[in-house]
Amino acid sequence: MSQTFQPRSGRLNPRFSLANSFFRLPIVDMADAFDVAVFGVPFDGAASYRVGSRFAPMAVRTVSALGRGYNMAREANVFDVLDVADVGDCPVTPPSLERSHAQIEEYVGAIAATGKRTLAVGGDHSITLPILRALKTRYGAPLALVHFDAHYDTYPAAWGVEHHHGAFLRHCVEEGLVEPTEVLQIGIRGPLASADDQSFTREHGIRVLTVDDIRDRPLKETLRDLPAFKGRPTYLTYDIDCLDPAFAPGTGTPVPGGLTTYEAQRILRALDIENLVGADIVEVCPPYDVSEITTLAAVDAMFEALGLMARSAAFDSAHRKP
Amino acid sequence: MSQTFQPRSGRLNPRFSLANSFFRLPIVDMADAFDVAVFGVPFDGAASYRVGSRFAPMAVRTVSALGRGYNMAREANVFDVLDVADVGDCPVTPPSLERSHAQIEEYVGAIAATGKRTLAVGGDHSITLPILRALKTRYGAPLALVHFDAHYDTYPAAWGVEHHHGAFLRHCVEEGLVEPTEVLQIGIRGPLASADDQSFTREHGIRVLTVDDIRDRPLKETLRDLPAFKGRPTYLTYDIDCLDPAFAPGTGTPVPGGLTTYEAQRILRALDIENLVGADIVEVCPPYDVSEITTLAAVDAMFEALGLMARSAAFDSAHRKP
Amino acid sequence: MSQTFQPRSGRLNPRFSLANSFFRLPIVDMADAFDVAVFGVPFDGAASYRVGSRFAPMAVRTVSALGRGYNMAREANVFDVLDVADVGDCPVTPPSLERSHAQIEEYVGAIAATGKRTLAVGGDHSITLPILRALKTRYGAPLALVHFDAHYDTYPAAWGVEHHHGAFLRHCVEEGLVEPTEVLQIGIRGPLASADDQSFTREHGIRVLTVDDIRDRPLKETLRDLPAFKGRPTYLTYDIDCLDPAFAPGTGTPVPGGLTTYEAQRILRALDIENLVGADIVEVCPPYDVSEITTLAAVDAMFEALGLMARSAAFDSAHRKP
Amino acid sequence: MSQTFQPRSGRLNPRFSLANSFFRLPIVDMADAFDVAVFGVPFDGAASYRVGSRFAPMAVRTVSALGRGYNMAREANVFDVLDVADVGDCPVTPPSLERSHAQIEEYVGAIAATGKRTLAVGGDHSITLPILRALKTRYGAPLALVHFDAHYDTYPAAWGVEHHHGAFLRHCVEEGLVEPTEVLQIGIRGPLASADDQSFTREHGIRVLTVDDIRDRPLKETLRDLPAFKGRPTYLTYDIDCLDPAFAPGTGTPVPGGLTTYEAQRILRALDIENLVGADIVEVCPPYDVSEITTLAAVDAMFEALGLMARSAAFDSAHRKP
Amino acid sequence: MSQTFQPRSGRLNPRFSLANSFFRLPIVDMADAFDVAVFGVPFDGAASYRVGSRFAPMAVRTVSALGRGYNMAREANVFDVLDVADVGDCPVTPPSLERSHAQIEEYVGAIAATGKRTLAVGGDHSITLPILRALKTRYGAPLALVHFDAHYDTYPAAWGVEHHHGAFLRHCVEEGLVEPTEVLQIGIRGPLASADDQSFTREHGIRVLTVDDIRDRPLKETLRDLPAFKGRPTYLTYDIDCLDPAFAPGTGTPVPGGLTTYEAQRILRALDIENLVGADIVEVCPPYDVSEITTLAAVDAMFEALGLMARSAAFDSAHRKP
Amino acid sequence: MSQTFQPRSGRLNPRFSLANSFFRLPIVDMADAFDVAVFGVPFDGAASYRVGSRFAPMAVRTVSALGRGYNMAREANVFDVLDVADVGDCPVTPPSLERSHAQIEEYVGAIAATGKRTLAVGGDHSITLPILRALKTRYGAPLALVHFDAHYDTYPAAWGVEHHHGAFLRHCVEEGLVEPTEVLQIGIRGPLASADDQSFTREHGIRVLTVDDIRDRPLKETLRDLPAFKGRPTYLTYDIDCLDPAFAPGTGTPVPGGLTTYEAQRILRALDIENLVGADIVEVCPPYDVSEITTLAAVDAMFEALGLMARSAAFDSAHRKP
Repeated sequence: MSQTFQPRSGRLNPRFSLANSFFRLPIVDMADAFDVAVFGVPFDGAASYRVGSRFAPMAVRTVSALGRGYNMAREANVFDVLDVADVGDCPVTPPSLERSHAQIEEYVGAIAATGKRTLAVGGDHSITLPILRALKTRYGAPLALVHFDAHYDTYPAAWGVEHHHGAFLRHCVEEGLVEPTEVLQIGIRGPLASADDQSFTREHGIRVLTVDDIRDRPLKETLRDLPAFKGRPTYLTYDIDCLDPAFAPGTGTPVPGGLTTYEAQRILRALDIENLVGADIVEVCPPYDVSEITTLAAVDAMFEALGLMARSAAFDSAHRKP
Repeated sequence: MSQTFQPRSGRLNPRFSLANSFFRLPIVDMADAFDVAVFGVPFDGAASYRVGSRFAPMAVRTVSALGRGYNMAREANVFDVLDVADVGDCPVTPPSLERSHAQIEEYVGAIAATGKRTLAVGGDHSITLPILRALKTRYGAPLALVHFDAHYDTYPAAWGVEHHHGAFLRHCVEEGLVEPTEVLQIGIRGPLASADDQSFTREHGIRVLTVDDIRDRPLKETLRDLPAFKGRPTYLTYDIDCLDPAFAPGTGTPVPGGLTTYEAQRILRALDIENLVGADIVEVCPPYDVSEITTLAAVDAMFEALGLMARSAAFDSAHRKP
Repeated sequence: MSQTFQPRSGRLNPRFSLANSFFRLPIVDMADAFDVAVFGVPFDGAASYRVGSRFAPMAVRTVSALGRGYNMAREANVFDVLDVADVGDCPVTPPSLERSHAQIEEYVGAIAATGKRTLAVGGDHSITLPILRALKTRYGAPLALVHFDAHYDTYPAAWGVEHHHGAFLRHCVEEGLVEPTEVLQIGIRGPLASADDQSFTREHGIRVLTVDDIRDRPLKETLRDLPAFKGRPTYLTYDIDCLDPAFAPGTGTPVPGGLTTYEAQRILRALDIENLVGADIVEVCPPYDVSEITTLAAVDAMFEALGLMARSAAFDSAHRKP
Repeated sequence: MSQTFQPRSGRLNPRFSLANSFFRLPIVDMADAFDVAVFGVPFDGAASYRVGSRFAPMAVRTVSALGRGYNMAREANVFDVLDVADVGDCPVTPPSLERSHAQIEEYVGAIAATGKRTLAVGGDHSITLPILRALKTRYGAPLALVHFDAHYDTYPAAWGVEHHHGAFLRHCVEEGLVEPTEVLQIGIRGPLASADDQSFTREHGIRVLTVDDIRDRPLKETLRDLPAFKGRPTYLTYDIDCLDPAFAPGTGTPVPGGLTTYEAQRILRALDIENLVGADIVEVCPPYDVSEITTLAAVDAMFEALGLMARSAAFDSAHRKP
Repeated sequence: MSQTFQPRSGRLNPRFSLANSFFRLPIVDMADAFDVAVFGVPFDGAASYRVGSRFAPMAVRTVSALGRGYNMAREANVFDVLDVADVGDCPVTPPSLERSHAQIEEYVGAIAATGKRTLAVGGDHSITLPILRALKTRYGAPLALVHFDAHYDTYPAAWGVEHHHGAFLRHCVEEGLVEPTEVLQIGIRGPLASADDQSFTREHGIRVLTVDDIRDRPLKETLRDLPAFKGRPTYLTYDIDCLDPAFAPGTGTPVPGGLTTYEAQRILRALDIENLVGADIVEVCPPYDVSEITTLAAVDAMFEALGLMARSAAFDSAHRKP
Repeated sequence: MSQTFQPRSGRLNPRFSLANSFFRLPIVDMADAFDVAVFGVPFDGAASYRVGSRFAPMAVRTVSALGRGYNMAREANVFDVLDVADVGDCPVTPPSLERSHAQIEEYVGAIAATGKRTLAVGGDHSITLPILRALKTRYGAPLALVHFDAHYDTYPAAWGVEHHHGAFLRHCVEEGLVEPTEVLQIGIRGPLASADDQSFTREHGIRVLTVDDIRDRPLKETLRDLPAFKGRPTYLTYDIDCLDPAFAPGTGTPVPGGLTTYEAQRILRALDIENLVGADIVEVCPPYDVSEITTLAAVDAMFEALGLMARSAAFDSAHRKP
């Protein structure tokens, strides 16, 4: 294990000092040799209500200085298992959804071409569409998808615009980027704009764990019955609004009655994913955060995503790298 | 179903645009023909600690633009079942509790006289007393009452004043506005000023679900065992401080150890009320809210209250309108 | 003078009650008969740094309830001289600069076609471009322009985008919408990105009052020497960042060392404009405001703009209406 | 000079420690022997817009720990010249303007009866009326009055209530509590509700220094030309909204274009008052303050008020005590 | 029961008035005759990330005015059972950990010497070390310890400093201040800096209830199985970061996935401690609190700590006082 | 001029993207070849009231992304004249003033040894003492000093500690680090703890421009009469509390009645310093900042400091480098 990719220790330099990269990791070129590339995608032009998630990559960098690497549940330090680095921010064009999506697809494609797993920090949820376009190209097949969210994100066009932040999943399905029967939605709750909002999900056989589904029985049973994701390359998209506004006030379209950070953490840990090729954390909106609690929750989800990727490393050893 | 009383769609005009009525509904005259009148009661002169709930009606209007009408649990869009409209704010006299209470009683009486159900947005909890005076007059009998709150609200006079915001229930019982054996209090918790605070409730046979009662067994059992409210016209008063301060920081007298928004939502949905004639949401104090999470929780409770009224519509068809 | 267009009095209904239109004025159809149409333009897709001015129209409506109509300096109540009304918000398409600009041009064109003066509340500063396109069409000639701002707003394209919020004046000049020798910039200050930023202004003969120009002599002298705007239809665009961040923290790209609210107020009052056909207040960004001080400063500037329009009414009587 | 009435030193105990009295002074009984009684009047029931000044006495106590006693301009430490103490808070009845005003009059009367000067921390501006009723009784004659404010405070009744926070001066004049020709208003600015608002002031010969009056010439000239207050017992009422919202965001009805803290400080220092018998600081509204800057400005004004009282001590020695 | 040590009633004086001591209790000399001394320890010089807990003692004093004394679960008013008083703040030296720790040890030693139980309000968690040094001296034996925290607080030196706020327990064990087999840690969660962080705890036989331990079965079972603390004098240290950041945003090193205020409250109530000789509440950091929810949660824990001490009073009667 | 040391352009990458170094400059090793080293000194252990300036270096880095390099007054782009780079943060030991001061002296000594000018971002004002110790060693003689501050910073020991943040100048004089007759203090104002606070300054012949001195005549005259700093190596220390709390709320010990950002800017620009060898910006306290206005003011002062250093470059060419 290279020392190069260890977070700067808080025992030598205080954590409030020079906290300017994800997890105090080195900022390197995406072409260097390591396992997981973390990067920002500061685009929020497709948001329908509050804006400001363009500031999330920098806010997450700062707050992730509080992060540590050893997961008590997994009994492993993720940074001992994986070489992780910060590769900077994807270029975006603030006033143009189309150009920004093209830039994102190109940027993620370039990382994926090096064989690395990707961990993106949005930006609004529209960014998952171009990311999955790039990964579909890379992996040559629709991906499986684990999708934490308060919303189905299968809405039709709004204000004449198709690719807004509440529609990414509709387009991923319609473009064949994900295999709908291997999509799992977690944290969904209402109220909805209409009954139609559910129909897309139902018609395509997408599995859904609503908050009611999760709360109607002991958490352990939910964890035990989570579907496994085997064989197919899998992507994780984590919309911070899956959490209740008390836990994540800093988001664009908050919905009361959501998950606790703890529930999301336990579900993330319990997921059985053979090959997690990428993940994103989206809709963190720092201007509405309070005392950084939303950003901390995002950092926590990123740790769990890295933990899932560490487990996929075994898969890599067996299947991909040779 | 008239289209007149549908919320303005967020798919044509963004939800941040002209969000100046409850749920983006039309603002109409209370004498028009519709089912439920939503109105503000911006009076906070009876608060004992933090003030500012006078700003709640406007804050709730703005934030309710994020609201949607389709309830996944009920599988119905409340705005398809009920004609709901914003009728404006009740006139109040900020420095005078007595005059404001008289104005409220007159205003609510005028709405009730048209046969509409009422949904009030306070203001402090003292406003429920004049509302119930008006409804007692309208319905000719004590009402049943569902009362969400951290506090018993049966306190004696403070600073020589009887009708402050922590005493409304005592006066409703003493004035015969509610039938105490058909009152259910939900969310009560301590510490209290003294043991005497409980005695009023106990002596009058009021049923109480403390937070301990709710948390000491699976939520489903609590929901199953909720008492039914049949026959007697029923009122719902929802003090936002029933929620824990983490979920509702923006309130006048917060008490740690409260309900989650989700628990309150589930209890509201599970209530079996044959004839809900009115409801209020009180003690939302915007100057202390953070990123509008308290206001969002209030909007959520308003949705559930409307859902309960939609279910009462069947009762109306059978009993009242003809 | 019609009573219809008087603000609802704060002596009958408290100012915190139903504060949901500009200055508590009636919300009417733009085709009705009155003098000045106030409207929101909630588009912030062209901002280069902080976003959120989409929430300004609603925030300004709420806070303008504190406003009053009698100007001590002019010894007149603007609402006795002019019929002013709120006509709602211009439709916009959040993720599309192009479509939003087209919508703005069409909307303002429709108001201008009725012969009314326009007072727009942005939104970011890019909206002034389509407004001036509409007014150029209406008036058939380049307009004179009074431009309060910290920035020249003559920047070249950024991220490949021409019409971002820091470039409106360049395009107004290049499209012949304004007569550059009758443009006055007020409040400009550095530092700049480069010396080139000044050159456009200088080459086109635009007059500039930097903060240094204003502070280097007694304010009264500056007021006395302001140029007059006679004959040519004139437009006023007021970017709230002309003010120092202490007075206007809630804005997108604040620059220290700016004007005080008082200085801007006095300059506005001293302007001698024969025919002010329209005005806008832009770059108010409520998520960054503190205790509404920025929004209050915006309301103050709107009052002065209405005062200037009231003075133009004499011009109308003489020149336009007959 | 008694050591008893010295502020606890910040050199021994840090200023953030036990900061629970005004200026870290002792909390004593009003009947003890000292010169100036500082007390809170936490009544905000007469406010017309934002409420919360009930929290000002505690907020001012905490922040005044930062205060120090030596005035560079006067070259004297006010706590070496005067014995000052905190006597606690006046009892009030939050929901009742009438009872609270009666309580204030009685409380201030009791202090004044001991021969002490009074320094009150409001509360809203309505409290000045009962304070002056008490002082008129004590001194047997109308007082002179120095009145810092953005507003004339001569408004007629609102919502049927006479004694709201914007009408205290009208009633003081009408009740003969102040001699109008010896009233000086400082900081007044518009816009106003109507021209009538000025007429009361003009008809009674009240002198007014508007912000325009102050800013239209060098500050030194204004200071030089301030009227002197000789012979007649004089009262100072300082409404924090005399300051611009940038300097005092935490207030109930802020008005842009106000004084700077520095200007108010210099005017206070320059006042020539022979016998300042009492003062108050009102309309500090902590829920709207940011980083305590409004509260700090209030503490600063309190220091200057004490400085003025120290100068009056000579008058006492000559005229009153013997 | 002496009336001297009753909180000032909120029915006579509003709770926002003169709220300048813990629970509105009298501020007295530590040598007076009463049972529990509450005091502040405003030292935050050993914090590794956010600072500001020096302001906690004053913030807790103010907010504890909302507190009441009757515990519904215990059916007793703690202030009827115990004489409790505020004895002020421990002197500290902000820039010196060593001197501050010495001052704390001396101050607590002086209180303990009078036979009183102690309730300290920190300050950062480093203060528990000198407190336990003083109590070890007083009681002559290692204490038992109940320790609520997100962190093990057994970290090694950081930046060359041993006694920072994340290491107090290591030193308490190493100095023989506590008996490790009678230490119970509650609320611990990861991620950790390394696996080594757990080893100290495990090697010394310290019992741990992680959040996972608590959430993996019904709360009632956890409460039933809590170990009893008999015979040995016991101390309670409550680091507010045991709570989730949603419930306690105002703390120095928040960790997502924590306890709810309710869970902590129930565990506190269920503890069976024969002789609780002291307690502290640490790491409340007011500059990061929002609407005082963290401070309220701290006040709630203080109530439960007092409740535990009230139960220990029986022990005293039997064992100590005679 | 090397392109290496140009800020990343905002026209290619938006300014909210990867804003993690001072002015978007490269982060390099201090031994590289360039002119000015900018670095953080995140030590706040010597603060007497509010703490949190440890977060200033990261906050200033983020906000300085809004900065631009061309100074309109100087008609030059500072980054075209000087090679400036971010060299990271000085190591500090949060709980130890002594060790931190030693670390600072060593770190600054190492930079100075390379011949670079230094620009430090504190931290509290105590850091200026070890910086000047290092520079005295480097330059072999007492320095001249320009000192912006609200306070004299000549206080005696507090709580038994000599080197707290209000005493740096006393120690600089007593240790012979600065030549007192070439010290200029700007922005000083009261009230003071006692008359003694002024005596040190007066006895040592230190020149002082109080706020009164600056405001008592036109600013241009003050600028014209500023003393020149010739020959002697000169240091600039800028305590952000020289500004009024309205302009800089985010600081540790704010004092009302301070400078405006504009006044400070103009004085900085007008200073005639032949050889500015180092500068610092201290006492920026981000937890108390609002919408980053304090941090922006600090960035503005840093620009002016760089501008002064650019002017000193001519001196270097003539005197030092050869």
